[in-house]
Amino acid sequence: MTIQAAYYTGHKTFTLEEKDDPAPGPGEVQIRVAFVGICGTDIHVYHGNMDARVGSHRVIGHEMSGTVSALGEGVTGVAVGDRVVVRPLDHCGQCPACQAGYTHICHKLKFLGLDTDGALQEHWNVPAHTIHKLPADMSLETAAMIEPLAVAVHDVRRARLQTGETALVIGGGPIGMLIAMVAKHVGANVILSEINPNRLRLAGEMGFTGLNPREGDVAAQVTEITGTKGADVVFEVSGTQPGVDLMTAAAATRGRICMVAIHAQKAQVDLFRFFWRELEMVGARVYEAEDYDRAIRMIADGLPVNRLITDRHPLGAVQQAFEALEGNATAMKTLIRVEETA
Amino acid sequence: MTIQAAYYTGHKTFTLEEKDDPAPGPGEVQIRVAFVGICGTDIHVYHGNMDARVGSHRVIGHEMSGTVSALGEGVTGVAVGDRVVVRPLDHCGQCPACQAGYTHICHKLKFLGLDTDGALQEHWNVPAHTIHKLPADMSLETAAMIEPLAVAVHDVRRARLQTGETALVIGGGPIGMLIAMVAKHVGANVILSEINPNRLRLAGEMGFTGLNPREGDVAAQVTEITGTKGADVVFEVSGTQPGVDLMTAAAATRGRICMVAIHAQKAQVDLFRFFWRELEMVGARVYEAEDYDRAIRMIADGLPVNRLITDRHPLGAVQQAFEALEGNATAMKTLIRVEETA
Ligand SMILES: [Zn+2]
Ligand SMILES: [Zn+2]
Ligand SMILES: [Zn+2]
Ligand SMILES: [Zn+2]
Repeated sequence: MTIQAAYYTGHKTFTLEEKDDPAPGPGEVQIRVAFVGICGTDIHVYHGNMDARVGSHRVIGHEMSGTVSALGEGVTGVAVGDRVVVRPLDHCGQCPACQAGYTHICHKLKFLGLDTDGALQEHWNVPAHTIHKLPADMSLETAAMIEPLAVAVHDVRRARLQTGETALVIGGGPIGMLIAMVAKHVGANVILSEINPNRLRLAGEMGFTGLNPREGDVAAQVTEITGTKGADVVFEVSGTQPGVDLMTAAAATRGRICMVAIHAQKAQVDLFRFFWRELEMVGARVYEAEDYDRAIRMIADGLPVNRLITDRHPLGAVQQAFEALEGNATAMKTLIRVEETA
Repeated sequence: MTIQAAYYTGHKTFTLEEKDDPAPGPGEVQIRVAFVGICGTDIHVYHGNMDARVGSHRVIGHEMSGTVSALGEGVTGVAVGDRVVVRPLDHCGQCPACQAGYTHICHKLKFLGLDTDGALQEHWNVPAHTIHKLPADMSLETAAMIEPLAVAVHDVRRARLQTGETALVIGGGPIGMLIAMVAKHVGANVILSEINPNRLRLAGEMGFTGLNPREGDVAAQVTEITGTKGADVVFEVSGTQPGVDLMTAAAATRGRICMVAIHAQKAQVDLFRFFWRELEMVGARVYEAEDYDRAIRMIADGLPVNRLITDRHPLGAVQQAFEALEGNATAMKTLIRVEETA
């Protein structure tokens, strides 16, 4: 038996290959992959920015849903036919982070789909501890949004956002939009700062106050909206210097800033404002098991995450799917349908 | 009746003047001032950096101790003869910070001794709510250290430092040294980064591990000392770019950074490290009532804060006291003795 797999082979290229279909090893679960979402990280891989880490013959993909198709030796608590998603983190268990209980940010963390082969293949073998089961009636298409939603849940949890508070989300890409949705779900007043008019329109439809920093002083507007208080919580998702300037300018006294974005370069930060207003900043990376559990519940409760799915392609068109994302101002989340090609 | 008062009159000059001795107003307490410590802020005033705020005829001084000498109308809970210190903060009660309970960082905070006349005078009238009573056997000289100690207590509390954790203090001036003392008092392992050899020697005498960034890579040393973990808590007290670089480099996964220093300029901050290690940073400014209570208890319990008192001058020698601090590598805390001149 062979299966189809899409390999990233360098130079903005994916190659579809027939590969062996290995049985799951001890402690592993084999999943028949249904849908795979394309993540910002995957786009970084496509652009060659992560070649040192992923090499030039790697099956990527980690935002996914599927059905259990086989169990390796010793696996319990899951059955063939279960609909599942994967929390794609494999930790060492030995490092100071693992010993302190922060296994999701293990110093030697393996990220499945980057450091190992991922979900853009018909069968994917993963450690059983990475599996989360889905309610029987949850659409597998919607379930492919659980991984990025779990990121947003983790961010909101790290920021300790409460009902009735005002949350400012800086940057309205898929993660920013999901954070805004989770923030609204927990009962916050949500303001989204974004320059893309399509995203601002979507924000309005979702019930967020959209503000465009190209058209006004967002910090001043947030101060006014909040009756001079400022935002109780700010999520910096833009990864830009203006975003970093805004995060301190718009935060209330004792406001919490959640650092979601990946700032590859050091940024200029107004540390005086941290002192003066006793601000707090917390970094937030990936998710823990409870974030997956909460994300699954939120989708079961009707959180309309599928409104962010803008594009769908079959596995055979992975190359076209990535090409279509370049300079695309309306795309939000692209899904690859793997199942159909099985 | 007149009293003596030392006025800052601009241009690095203090002028001793005889002034009226007004009775305390309603809700005020009059204190016969015993000792006044010279704070970093006072040195800023002396250098003319705060003329816009304090003007050119201002009695400064806010780190103090004394004895109640008269009570204004309606004051209860304190008696003439009580030995007291002043928590020199007067808040508005109306702003968003006050309404949220953060009166110590009120948006319209008046700092006594900067925004109003301060303690460098024989009699000081202050709002009764700013008074903390001292144990009868506490030396008034030592008690003049309560205000800066309360800053350190507040910083350690904001950082949620726990027994057995490793604390890195960046900068060993009076506040850094007091933070290190409080950190040790709560049972932390304390590392102090400092370039001044006199201060490093004092750190050693106090039981802290002193590290000199001019002689080695402090982040690497902290990593080694902590068995690759990093510091659980970092206090940035240096106000320098190398200090800001060190704070993120030396912090453990999920480590807490307490921003104590006043960074007048924006600094380059490694936000990627915040994301990657899920670091946390909290700003900390002045103190709350409970920090004063804890500081008083710690001194009563024998915290040797008087080891930081390096210089003493009478009120008549305020000018010389400030001049003696310029370029002084051994001075830590200078006290002005006001009582003797009464
Ligand atoms: Zn992702
Ligand atoms: Zn680990
Ligand atoms: Zn002070
Ligand atoms: Zn106020």
